[in-house]
Amino acid sequence: MLITLTTDFGTHDHFVGVMKGVILGLAPRVTIVDITHEIAPFQINEAAFTIAEAYRWFPKKTIHLVVVDPGVGTTRRPILVEAQGHRFIGPDNGVFSFLYDSGPHKVRAIKNSALALKKVSRTFHGRDVFAPAAAHLAKGVTPTRFGKLVDDAIRSASLKPAETKKPSGIKARRWTGTILHVDRFGNLITNFHMKDFAELRTRPFEILAGNQIVRRLALTYAEAGLGEVVAIEGSSGYLEISADQVSAAHKLGCRAGSPVELEIFY
Amino acid sequence: MLITLTTDFGTHDHFVGVMKGVILGLAPRVTIVDITHEIAPFQINEAAFTIAEAYRWFPKKTIHLVVVDPGVGTTRRPILVEAQGHRFIGPDNGVFSFLYDSGPHKVRAIKNSALALKKVSRTFHGRDVFAPAAAHLAKGVTPTRFGKLVDDAIRSASLKPAETKKPSGIKARRWTGTILHVDRFGNLITNFHMKDFAELRTRPFEILAGNQIVRRLALTYAEAGLGEVVAIEGSSGYLEISADQVSAAHKLGCRAGSPVELEIFY
Amino acid sequence: MLITLTTDFGTHDHFVGVMKGVILGLAPRVTIVDITHEIAPFQINEAAFTIAEAYRWFPKKTIHLVVVDPGVGTTRRPILVEAQGHRFIGPDNGVFSFLYDSGPHKVRAIKNSALALKKVSRTFHGRDVFAPAAAHLAKGVTPTRFGKLVDDAIRSASLKPAETKKPSGIKARRWTGTILHVDRFGNLITNFHMKDFAELRTRPFEILAGNQIVRRLALTYAEAGLGEVVAIEGSSGYLEISADQVSAAHKLGCRAGSPVELEIFY
Repeated sequence: MLITLTTDFGTHDHFVGVMKGVILGLAPRVTIVDITHEIAPFQINEAAFTIAEAYRWFPKKTIHLVVVDPGVGTTRRPILVEAQGHRFIGPDNGVFSFLYDSGPHKVRAIKNSALALKKVSRTFHGRDVFAPAAAHLAKGVTPTRFGKLVDDAIRSASLKPAETKKPSGIKARRWTGTILHVDRFGNLITNFHMKDFAELRTRPFEILAGNQIVRRLALTYAEAGLGEVVAIEGSSGYLEISADQVSAAHKLGCRAGSPVELEIFY
Repeated sequence: MLITLTTDFGTHDHFVGVMKGVILGLAPRVTIVDITHEIAPFQINEAAFTIAEAYRWFPKKTIHLVVVDPGVGTTRRPILVEAQGHRFIGPDNGVFSFLYDSGPHKVRAIKNSALALKKVSRTFHGRDVFAPAAAHLAKGVTPTRFGKLVDDAIRSASLKPAETKKPSGIKARRWTGTILHVDRFGNLITNFHMKDFAELRTRPFEILAGNQIVRRLALTYAEAGLGEVVAIEGSSGYLEISADQVSAAHKLGCRAGSPVELEIFY
Repeated sequence: MLITLTTDFGTHDHFVGVMKGVILGLAPRVTIVDITHEIAPFQINEAAFTIAEAYRWFPKKTIHLVVVDPGVGTTRRPILVEAQGHRFIGPDNGVFSFLYDSGPHKVRAIKNSALALKKVSRTFHGRDVFAPAAAHLAKGVTPTRFGKLVDDAIRSASLKPAETKKPSGIKARRWTGTILHVDRFGNLITNFHMKDFAELRTRPFEILAGNQIVRRLALTYAEAGLGEVVAIEGSSGYLEISADQVSAAHKLGCRAGSPVELEIFY
């Protein structure tokens, strides 16, 4: 049985190791795979994007543990999500928003304290609640034993761009979106999905990100001139903002969570 | 059987991969878990803190390999420690100091060259001595075969704060401590343990760390005002120094090993 | 069965996790070991150095996957290399150059599309081609089924220093080399191997790297004076450039791929 880990814990501290110790103490035969521990601290949308991009490449029945949890210690619920033949465990704060849009799914509020560590701290539910839940699920405890189905799981409002007031005087539409993820090369992955914004391929547009206006859609990173900032259709289907050979994140002063404005002209 | 790794090797070089290759060549059925490879170079106290916080969350009999080893190639001894039902392997330089305080323990100087690689370099005992020792232990070689018990294992002097000269004229006591660890968020974990310094909860005090004097003990990180530097009782029981939403390490110019002064007034 | 991974993907994105998901979906019993994912982007020579230093410490028959692949999506071939009892999979761009020099070896161009994912993208062959090839090999598919032997695999021109024009008027020889790797401590590992340049131990020389001329061969890092830049014979046998207690890479403004000039005087 496979368990994947996606957190904002980084790899400097002992936190990730401790979660693995708890899992392997309860379920010694599990194989654990790190997706990443470098989600920007508390960036729920970045975690949501990352697990949505990653999970489908694992075999069915894999358990995906996502611990980006600014509400740890409050009343936010731990949840177990079944979707697309995979299982997901994490806080009910929007980290699984993409899955809710991907098709039929079940969400359970985890309530069974017999499936957590005996002593639950207020600050480290990754260790005390989520890791043991994943281990018990891996060992065959059925989802129904974790808790009841709920239908009010939290969806992240900002995963889809919001249309904003039309500018007066010119024929255009305008949306406000956000940066879902900054990749290793500093490319900014926005929440504008090309299947919803196919007009970018044919109409003039302006994207405002950080201190820069972008007007060109390139087909490949290489198409951009040296230092030029362009939009491209990324491998995940989302519009990316990219600067040739340099980090667009640095050049534009953007990071995960930064706003992006799009205007399409008619 | 589980083997954990805690080193200052970083993840840019091939060193950690090589240690795993040596272990898995000798003991193919072992599961290896990284605690961290980001211990600040040569910071023995940070390694000691990290393994002390991590080991108890693993199942009994786990083997914990700690390689922070500024004395590699000198006459410092490799040791095998049995404590709390766990086994520990590393250099005799203080990295296991916390364990010696935690209860009964046995320390052996590793002398049996049949349990190391045939050719031992002067610069990489992680590969040549410690990794093979852990693999052989995992495969069932008994501790007695590694070497004889010793009673003079090195303890790190600075794991406990030292009381310093009383300031004259005012009723106060004064201690010099150190930063054990800087976590991902830049919080400074000191070696002042709240069980020894419970008076911090009731008496006025001053903590001098880097360029800053701290006078307030907060209950949570969130309690600090924007940019305010406060002391808090961390999840490990140690006093931490934290700056709201920014890195206290950057703000105060401190890192693992930096000194911290505490004065309590009566 | 063991599979090692060496890439320039970093650990911020989901890419490495996805490759592991593909491997474990096809070959659930495989153990995966990360060598590093911090190869400098597109630095083929650094990848070549890293895998050459790492592979021999793993048991025979280990499969080493190397994905540093600036030519992804072009006509560059995926290859399977058998050498020294190990197996290697990656792009035919020079990443296995050191192996070709190490003794007898077989290189096959991977052509069998049944051993890749059904849909192969233009941008992520690590997931679509290389990971499934490694998984199938681990499960026992014979090398002959991957494709035919080829004898024109690409060797990196710059793995060996090139002798350049003799300076006139003085008795000396001159070579141009390169930085193969920058290690965690900022030491610069050059492609001057001491077995080819043993004269460095006995004759006067000058090394020009970045903005610095180095004239001294030290035996240990510690031998350098504070801040002094020296050459040393590294543990891999290559000449390294090192600055006492500070990063030589920062001090000299060098990185993997930077040129190094050597002049030996007679």
